[in-house]
Amino acid sequence: MNFGFDDTTAELRARLLAFMDECVLPAERAYEEQTATSGWGPPPLLEDLKGEARKRGLWNLFLPGEEGAGLTNLQYAPLAEIMGRSPSIAASATNCAAPDTGNMELLAQFGSEWQRKEYLEPLLNGEIRSAFAMTEPDVASSDATNISTSIVRDGGEYVINGRKWFITGAMNPNCKVLIVMGKTDPEAPSHRQQSMVLVPRGTPGLTIKRGMKVFGYDDASHGGHAEVVFEDVRVPVDHLIGEEGGGFAIAQARLGPGRIHHCMRLIGAAERAVELMCRRALSRSTFGKTIAQQGVVQDWIAESRVRIEQLRLLVLKTAWLMDTVGNRGAHTEIQAIKIATPAAVEWILDKAIQVHGAGGLSQDFPLAGAWAGVRSLRFADGPDEVHKRSLAYRELKKYMD
Amino acid sequence: MNFGFDDTTAELRARLLAFMDECVLPAERAYEEQTATSGWGPPPLLEDLKGEARKRGLWNLFLPGEEGAGLTNLQYAPLAEIMGRSPSIAASATNCAAPDTGNMELLAQFGSEWQRKEYLEPLLNGEIRSAFAMTEPDVASSDATNISTSIVRDGGEYVINGRKWFITGAMNPNCKVLIVMGKTDPEAPSHRQQSMVLVPRGTPGLTIKRGMKVFGYDDASHGGHAEVVFEDVRVPVDHLIGEEGGGFAIAQARLGPGRIHHCMRLIGAAERAVELMCRRALSRSTFGKTIAQQGVVQDWIAESRVRIEQLRLLVLKTAWLMDTVGNRGAHTEIQAIKIATPAAVEWILDKAIQVHGAGGLSQDFPLAGAWAGVRSLRFADGPDEVHKRSLAYRELKKYMD
Amino acid sequence: MNFGFDDTTAELRARLLAFMDECVLPAERAYEEQTATSGWGPPPLLEDLKGEARKRGLWNLFLPGEEGAGLTNLQYAPLAEIMGRSPSIAASATNCAAPDTGNMELLAQFGSEWQRKEYLEPLLNGEIRSAFAMTEPDVASSDATNISTSIVRDGGEYVINGRKWFITGAMNPNCKVLIVMGKTDPEAPSHRQQSMVLVPRGTPGLTIKRGMKVFGYDDASHGGHAEVVFEDVRVPVDHLIGEEGGGFAIAQARLGPGRIHHCMRLIGAAERAVELMCRRALSRSTFGKTIAQQGVVQDWIAESRVRIEQLRLLVLKTAWLMDTVGNRGAHTEIQAIKIATPAAVEWILDKAIQVHGAGGLSQDFPLAGAWAGVRSLRFADGPDEVHKRSLAYRELKKYMD
Amino acid sequence: MNFGFDDTTAELRARLLAFMDECVLPAERAYEEQTATSGWGPPPLLEDLKGEARKRGLWNLFLPGEEGAGLTNLQYAPLAEIMGRSPSIAASATNCAAPDTGNMELLAQFGSEWQRKEYLEPLLNGEIRSAFAMTEPDVASSDATNISTSIVRDGGEYVINGRKWFITGAMNPNCKVLIVMGKTDPEAPSHRQQSMVLVPRGTPGLTIKRGMKVFGYDDASHGGHAEVVFEDVRVPVDHLIGEEGGGFAIAQARLGPGRIHHCMRLIGAAERAVELMCRRALSRSTFGKTIAQQGVVQDWIAESRVRIEQLRLLVLKTAWLMDTVGNRGAHTEIQAIKIATPAAVEWILDKAIQVHGAGGLSQDFPLAGAWAGVRSLRFADGPDEVHKRSLAYRELKKYMD
Repeated sequence: MNFGFDDTTAELRARLLAFMDECVLPAERAYEEQTATSGWGPPPLLEDLKGEARKRGLWNLFLPGEEGAGLTNLQYAPLAEIMGRSPSIAASATNCAAPDTGNMELLAQFGSEWQRKEYLEPLLNGEIRSAFAMTEPDVASSDATNISTSIVRDGGEYVINGRKWFITGAMNPNCKVLIVMGKTDPEAPSHRQQSMVLVPRGTPGLTIKRGMKVFGYDDASHGGHAEVVFEDVRVPVDHLIGEEGGGFAIAQARLGPGRIHHCMRLIGAAERAVELMCRRALSRSTFGKTIAQQGVVQDWIAESRVRIEQLRLLVLKTAWLMDTVGNRGAHTEIQAIKIATPAAVEWILDKAIQVHGAGGLSQDFPLAGAWAGVRSLRFADGPDEVHKRSLAYRELKKYMD
Repeated sequence: MNFGFDDTTAELRARLLAFMDECVLPAERAYEEQTATSGWGPPPLLEDLKGEARKRGLWNLFLPGEEGAGLTNLQYAPLAEIMGRSPSIAASATNCAAPDTGNMELLAQFGSEWQRKEYLEPLLNGEIRSAFAMTEPDVASSDATNISTSIVRDGGEYVINGRKWFITGAMNPNCKVLIVMGKTDPEAPSHRQQSMVLVPRGTPGLTIKRGMKVFGYDDASHGGHAEVVFEDVRVPVDHLIGEEGGGFAIAQARLGPGRIHHCMRLIGAAERAVELMCRRALSRSTFGKTIAQQGVVQDWIAESRVRIEQLRLLVLKTAWLMDTVGNRGAHTEIQAIKIATPAAVEWILDKAIQVHGAGGLSQDFPLAGAWAGVRSLRFADGPDEVHKRSLAYRELKKYMD
Repeated sequence: MNFGFDDTTAELRARLLAFMDECVLPAERAYEEQTATSGWGPPPLLEDLKGEARKRGLWNLFLPGEEGAGLTNLQYAPLAEIMGRSPSIAASATNCAAPDTGNMELLAQFGSEWQRKEYLEPLLNGEIRSAFAMTEPDVASSDATNISTSIVRDGGEYVINGRKWFITGAMNPNCKVLIVMGKTDPEAPSHRQQSMVLVPRGTPGLTIKRGMKVFGYDDASHGGHAEVVFEDVRVPVDHLIGEEGGGFAIAQARLGPGRIHHCMRLIGAAERAVELMCRRALSRSTFGKTIAQQGVVQDWIAESRVRIEQLRLLVLKTAWLMDTVGNRGAHTEIQAIKIATPAAVEWILDKAIQVHGAGGLSQDFPLAGAWAGVRSLRFADGPDEVHKRSLAYRELKKYMD
Repeated sequence: MNFGFDDTTAELRARLLAFMDECVLPAERAYEEQTATSGWGPPPLLEDLKGEARKRGLWNLFLPGEEGAGLTNLQYAPLAEIMGRSPSIAASATNCAAPDTGNMELLAQFGSEWQRKEYLEPLLNGEIRSAFAMTEPDVASSDATNISTSIVRDGGEYVINGRKWFITGAMNPNCKVLIVMGKTDPEAPSHRQQSMVLVPRGTPGLTIKRGMKVFGYDDASHGGHAEVVFEDVRVPVDHLIGEEGGGFAIAQARLGPGRIHHCMRLIGAAERAVELMCRRALSRSTFGKTIAQQGVVQDWIAESRVRIEQLRLLVLKTAWLMDTVGNRGAHTEIQAIKIATPAAVEWILDKAIQVHGAGGLSQDFPLAGAWAGVRSLRFADGPDEVHKRSLAYRELKKYMD
C-alpha cells in the first residue's frame, strides 16, 4: 500500500497547476464577462486557452489508449481534481469536458471506423462538440426500462420518435451530433431493449426546443441543457453504435470513468471552496472578532477538510480498482463515490456560501454556481437513492443463502 | 390554551383560499410567461389581480391599526401562510409583499406627516413600490456597527455616501423611494450611530448599478436585488425618519413582524412542496413500484409533515407573544423562528426537488426558485449563526450570577 | 388561539414545582445510594415521598375521570413535563409512573368490576405495581399480527404459552399482576386475533427469568425489564380484559395518553439537560475561555432551545386535539410527537453529555441514564420507522383518487 | 499509488482471521458468562487464549522495533481492524489492548533501563497490566495546562497529590503500575510544566476509590475505569519517565499510534455491526416484508458501507504518513481520523441497534456495549471539538500572511 503519486502523475500535476495559475485562473473574470454576450456556447477566449493547453501537452488527458494521453484512471484522477478548481474553463480548455469525454470514450470503444473518423476525430481535435441524449421528461429514466423514445428500423434507416431533456451542450450550435438512447425492441429482456444511435444536428424532425435551467442558471457557455424533440427523425442504419440491444451495456460502460471525472472535479471545487471560505473568514469581522475566530466557522472548516480527505481517497481507490480489476470489480466503489461525493461537496459549498454572506449567493463568487452544479449531480446517472438501494442489495446478498 | 382559529381569522382564511384557488393559482403560468419579457418589475397581469384582491377585501392585511386591515400578528400569520403557497403573486396582489410591508409599518409608526402623505399613502394604495437599503458589500453588515455608509448633515441637507447591495425591489422603475440606513454619528454609542433617511429615486448621485443574482435568478418580477451607489447624494433634512441616532431602534422594530411574515410564507411554501412531492411520487414508477412506495421517500414525507407541524406552532406562538407581551418579550421566539424555519423548509424543498428528478431543478416547477429564496433567508436580517449566539447568550444568562 | 395555561394548570404547576424543589430534587442523591442496595424495586425513601405527594394533592394526576385527578390531557401535559426533570422519582412519587399509568387507564376503561376492585384500586392507592407484557424476543412485535404468544381457552380457563421480554417493572416482587397480550384466534382478521388477560404474579408456569439491560443499566429501582416465560399458564376466563379479539383495540387506546406522558417527560428531561449544560459550560475553562464562550457550544444551546420550544407546542397541541376531537382525530399528531420527541431529546442529551466530558457518561450526572431511556423510546410502541411509514401513507392518501 | 496489502500484512491477516474464527468468536459467550463473576479483571479463559495467540505468533503485534513484532503502522492497522470485530477478547488475547499498548510504547521509547526491566518486560509478556492516569474530575483536562495534580520533588522522592478518574484498567488487582501525569513546575512555559512518573500499585497514599461507569457499564473485565486519589504519594526520583517537564511531549508521542489502533478497531466493530444488521434484517419480517426490504434500512446499510470505505482509507493513509513522514507530518490526518471515526461508527452502531429492536439495546448482542465504547471515544484524548478547532486553525494558517 502506497499513497504517493507516480512520476507521470507528479509531472503532469505540476504542468497542469502551472497552466491553471498562469492561464486559467487569470481568465476567469473575462470568461464570465464574455459569457454574458456569447450566446449558447463558450466565449471566444476559450479558443486561445485550448491552443495553449495543447501546446503544453495538456490535451485529451482523460482518454486512455493511443488516441488520448494514455493515462490510467488513477493517473488522470488527480488531474481532474485540479481542473475542478475552475471547472468551466479548465476542462473545456484541455478538451476534457463532459459530455464529450464520455462520448469520445464511447466512440473510441464502440464506434465503427466511419463513426470514429466522422465524429471522434473532430471531437479529439476540439473542433466540434457533442451531446448525450438519455433523460426523458415523461418517465423516471433512472430505470432504463422506462425509456420511451422509440428507434424503429425501416429499411436502411432508423426512425426515432421521443422527447428528451436536460441534454447538456445541445443548445450550442457547434454541437454537431447527439448520441441518442432509445428502444429498438420493447419486447426484449429488460437490458436488451435499448440501442444508441448517432443523430447529426440538422437532421429533419430534430428540434432543439429550449434550454432547461438549473436553479436560475442556463449554463449557456456549456451549451445549456436542452429539451429536444424527435419527430420521425431518420438516420441511416450505420448510425447505430455497436449492436442493436447493446445500448444499456454501452451506457453502463460509459459510467465508470465519468464517475471518477465528476467526483474528482467536485473535490477540486470543494478545495477551492475551502480556500475561499478561509480567506473570507480571515478578512471579515463582526462583533470584534474575525469570522475565522468564530467556533462554528472553525467547525465547518475542520469538517470540510476531514470530509475532503476521505472522499479523495475513496475516489482514488475506485480509480485504482477500475485499472486493476475492471469496472465490474469496482461496482460497489463506483456507486459509493457517486453517493458520497455530491452530498459532501454540496455541504461544503453551502458553508462556504454562508461565510460569504449574501455575496456568496451571487454572480460575484463561483460558489452558488458550483453549488447548483453539484446539486444536479445528486440526480445525474440516476438519483442517489437508486444507487443506495443497489449497493445495499449487494451488501445484503453476502448473507443470503 | 387553545389551538383553534378565531372567527375573524377563519373567515379571512376562507376568503383568501378562495382567491388563491380562483385567481392566483390559475394565473401562475401566465405570470411566468409574462415575466420573461416584462423587465424589472411585475408582469402586467398583476394589476388585475390587485384590483380583484382589493374588491374582495384582501388588501393590506399585514398592517395593524386603522391604516391597514387591523389584524393582530396572530390573525395575520395564517393568512401569510396561505399566500406562501404562491408567494410571488399572492403577496404582491394583496399588497402584502416585502420589502414594502416593512417599509409601510415603519412609516406608519415613525414617519412624519408629510412622509406618510408622500410615501405611505401611495404605498398603501399599491401605486408605488419602495426599497430598504441596509446590506453593504464591504462589511459584515449583520453587525450594525460595521455599517460604513455615511449620512452627514450639511446645512438643511443630509449628504449620503456609500455602497449597498441586495437591495430588493430597487431595479423596478416604479420603486420610487429607498429607505437608507447609514451612520450620522460614528462616535456615538454603538446603537446610536445609525439613522434612516428617505432617498427618492432619481436623486442626483444615486446610481442603481446592477441586479445581483441569487443562484442564477435575477428575480426581475420583484424588482431584483440591486447594487446601489450613493455619491454625495443630497436630501433635505426632513427626509430623516424619526430622530438622528434612531436608525438601529427603528430597524429592530421592523424585524419582528417581518420575521412572522417570512416564516409563515415559508411554511406555506413547504406545504405546497409536500403536496407536489406526494403527487409526483404517486405518479411516477421505477423498478415496478411507484416512487411513493419507496421507503426513503415515505420517510421524507413523514419528516416534512412532522417538521411543518412544529414550525407552524412556534411561529404562531411567537405571533401571540408579540401581540400579548410585545416584541421584547418575544425576543427568544423571534430568533428561534428565524433559526428554525429556513433550515427546515430548505430541507423539505430539497427533498421535493429530489422526488421530481431533474425537472425539480428547472423552471417547470416552482421548487428550485422557492429553494433559492429560502436559502437566501439564512442570511437575511443576519446569518443564523449570529442569532444562535445571541439566543444562547440569553439562555446562559439565566444561570450567571 | 391562546398559548397561556388555564387556572387549574397554573395552580397545579406551582404546587408540583414546589414539591420538586422541596422534596424530589433534594432526595436524588439518597435515591441513587439506596438504589445500589435495594434490589429489584424502589428504594425505601420512595414511600415517604408518596405520602408527601398524596398529602399535597399530587396523586394520580394522569388519570381523567372521577377515579383520578380529572384533568384533561392538555392540563396534565405540563405537569408531566415538570416530573420529567427527575423522572425516576417524581413520577413514582405521584403514582404517575409507567407502565402502571397505562394499565390503570386500561382497567378504568375496559376492566370488569372485580378486575377494578382487585387490581385498579390497589394500583390507584400505590400499594402494588403492574406490568404490561407485549414485546416478544422472537418476532418483530411492532406488527401486532406477529405476536406468537398463544391464549387458548380450555373450559373455564385460558392457557397461555409464549415468551416476552423487556417487560418493565416485572422484576419487582411488588409487581402483582401482568397484563398479557396474546392471540386467542390466529385465524381471525388481523386486528381481531389478539386478546389481553390478567396474569397474577405467582401463577404456576409463569417464570420471571431475568432482567434485560438497556445499555449497561438494569433499571432495578423501576423493577427492571424482565424476560418472562409462560408455560401452560392457566387463568380463569374472567381474567380476560374486555372481549376476546379486543386486544389490539385496547392496545391502541392505551397508546395516545401514554405518548403524551412520555413526550412531556422527555421535554422535562431536555430542559434539565439544557440547564446542566449551561451551568457546566459556565463553570469550566479550556484554553483561556469558558466552555460557554465556545461558539460550537453556544450553537448546541441555541439549537436545544429552538427544538424544545417546537416540540413542546406540538405535544401540547396533540393533547388538545385528543381532548377535543379524540385519539383518532389526533392520529397524525400522536405519531408525529412519537417520531420527533425522542430523536430531538436524544440529540440534546448527547450535547449535554459532551459538555460534561467523561463525567457526563458516568453515574455522577443524570445524563447518560436519561440518554439510555430516551434511546429506548425510539423502539417503544414500535420503531420510529414504522410510524413514519404510516404517517406518510396518510399524507399520500390525501392525493390519491 | 497502490491500495493492496503487502505480503507480510496479507499473511498476518490470514493468520489472525483464522485465530478469530477458531478461537475468539467461539469464546465470546463463555467470556460474557465468566465476566459476570470474575470481578475486576479478565475472566479465566483469557489466559488460554493468550497462550494460543502467542503460539500462533500473534503477540505484541502493535509494537514496532525488536521488542515487538516489528510492523509498521500501515502493516499493523489492518490487523487492529480484525481485532475490532471482537475487541474485548482479541486485543487482550494478543497483548494488544489499551492502555497497555500505549504504555509499552512509551516505556520502550522513553523508559530507563530499570523501568524497562521492571515494567516493560512483564507487560510484554502479558504478566501484568498497567494504567495511564491523566484525566481529572475537577478540570477540563483536554487542556494540559489545566492539570492540577502536583508532583513535587522532595529530596530523592517525588510527592504526588491529586485526583484522577476514568483511569482504565486500574480496578484490576493485576494492574501493577500507573503512569501518572502531573505538574512538576507550574511556572514553566505551558508545555514544559508536566512530567510523568511511575506509581506502583500499593504505594502508600494511593487509593483506587471506585469504578466510574460508562452508560451503566462498569467494564470490569478490562479493569474498569477507576477514580484514583493521590495523597502525599511518594516515589523515588528514578520513577520519573524521561525528563522533568517532558510529560506533555511524551503524551503527544503516545497519541499517534493509539489513534490508529482505536480507529481501526472501531472500523472492525463497524464491519461487524453491518454484518449483524444485514443478518437481522434478512431474518425478521413485519407487515409482509423482511426488514431488509425496507427502503430506509437499505439506506442505512448503503450509508454504512460508504462511510466505512472512506474511513478505512483515511486511517490507512494516516498510518502510511506516520511511517513515512512521522507523527508531526501526519498531524492533520491524525486529528482527522479522531474526528471522523467515532462519529461515523457511532452512527452505524445506532442503526444496527435500531434494526435489532429492543434486543439491540441489551446484553444479548454486542451492539449497545460497543456503542458505549465508541461514544466515550468522542472525549478520549480530548473532545472532538478541541481537535476540530486545532485542525481548522492549521487550515486557516495557510492563508494568513
